[in-house]
Amino acid sequence: MSIPSRSHGRKTISASLTPSDLMAEPTRLKGAWAAKIITLFPEAFPGVLGASLTGKALQEGKWTLDAIDLRIFGEGKHRNVDDTPYGGGAGMVLRADIVGKALDFAKRGTSERAKWPVVYLSPRGKPFTQAKAAEWAEADGITMLCGRFEGVDQRVLDHYEIDEVSLGDFVLTGGEIAAQAMIDATVRLLPDVLGNADSTEDESFSDGITLEHPQYTRPAEWRGLGVPDILTSGDHGKVDAWRREQSEALTKARRPDLWAKREEGEG
Amino acid sequence: MSIPSRSHGRKTISASLTPSDLMAEPTRLKGAWAAKIITLFPEAFPGVLGASLTGKALQEGKWTLDAIDLRIFGEGKHRNVDDTPYGGGAGMVLRADIVGKALDFAKRGTSERAKWPVVYLSPRGKPFTQAKAAEWAEADGITMLCGRFEGVDQRVLDHYEIDEVSLGDFVLTGGEIAAQAMIDATVRLLPDVLGNADSTEDESFSDGITLEHPQYTRPAEWRGLGVPDILTSGDHGKVDAWRREQSEALTKARRPDLWAKREEGEG
Repeated sequence: MSIPSRSHGRKTISASLTPSDLMAEPTRLKGAWAAKIITLFPEAFPGVLGASLTGKALQEGKWTLDAIDLRIFGEGKHRNVDDTPYGGGAGMVLRADIVGKALDFAKRGTSERAKWPVVYLSPRGKPFTQAKAAEWAEADGITMLCGRFEGVDQRVLDHYEIDEVSLGDFVLTGGEIAAQAMIDATVRLLPDVLGNADSTEDESFSDGITLEHPQYTRPAEWRGLGVPDILTSGDHGKVDAWRREQSEALTKARRPDLWAKREEGEG
Repeated sequence: MSIPSRSHGRKTISASLTPSDLMAEPTRLKGAWAAKIITLFPEAFPGVLGASLTGKALQEGKWTLDAIDLRIFGEGKHRNVDDTPYGGGAGMVLRADIVGKALDFAKRGTSERAKWPVVYLSPRGKPFTQAKAAEWAEADGITMLCGRFEGVDQRVLDHYEIDEVSLGDFVLTGGEIAAQAMIDATVRLLPDVLGNADSTEDESFSDGITLEHPQYTRPAEWRGLGVPDILTSGDHGKVDAWRREQSEALTKARRPDLWAKREEGEG
């Protein structure tokens, strides 16, 4: 039995692999990074994740996506998954017993918790950042619970020690879009997903602190507007310096919060 | 000619409407809120926006979605839309001339700029917030430019005075997911989109400052865990006080940045 040249997407390690094979390509021998999404709208997946780079990587088995329909764990004729909140108030709350069953189902085949985060997408969570995407890309996979309605019973979050993560300071109709955004940010950091390995390097937030400098391309003149002379000077040192200046000026102007963190980091 | 009882989704105001009609229901008489998305992946839309509340509202004509394929404005046999950056570096930059043609096309049928924001989705932008969603929901519609690759020629942003808006401090493979998230947050604030008008009131960020309190629902006991007694006491005043305390404690613990803003606001 031969060893395929590309091992991404294989979920198990073939018994024909020898210890020397394991040592030669350690990062390629683990299973593909996997996302398990517990949702009432499984049909919303892969959605935009099926397009472009993430879609291509999905087809090539560089990651896997499993949308788990919460409804199938519902009870009664209508497969109820939610109920009114204790103490009153608008909206409905996802039931602990139903969500618990879905989480137990999703747990099958996953790694220990240190290598497999379990998160609930909620505006109450800690804001998602590039650092979190990088951390998740190092894991074997992730399980995400998408909320709808008013929220999920607190006991299920406590019992499973679920981390709440927020896409930002705004309210969405559900966690599905947040899941897609976080998966996109994570999957593009997996090995071999981006065509050009360089292109994660000088982008915004790769250093955690500055926004990307302005970019220009042909045509050289457009609607009377030219390109900064320095970019066509051929002097790479000057180009780099100009870009750094632009990047810093933009960050100071638009994101004083990021700039302050940078100053703290250097202080 | 009769006036339909539901006027959402009509793009023009019928000539049969009298001034008294206009005064009776001013918010229902404007055309449906419209999103125009300039993208290289029009097939990614409506994506998750086609599901659940936003999908129902889309079908009912409470808002409209127009995904404009940037590729059709491309040049040459391969309909090129991008080129290498002046000054060197990784990746490709969307051309000002191509994007300009798409923006001119998208402008047809839109309102003046004050009622129709034009934005570029980019990690360099100002962070998207609930306040921005509320502002956009008051407009007649929005035009969004989705970036891919390294970015877009700065001149097109300058010439069209495009606002850059960021979904958060992370990098996505493209602007499409960011567009979907921002549209979702905006559309749910349009009139009659949420089934229960109450449900936008006591959610996180509706007051801009605190995270939502924990929620509980039946069963009363689950895996040995009960529900806080106060929630079943029937004393609405105490329930409200408990929820406010929980909400404040959670905000202080998880989001000292939001809590500091609240203190400033009260100081």
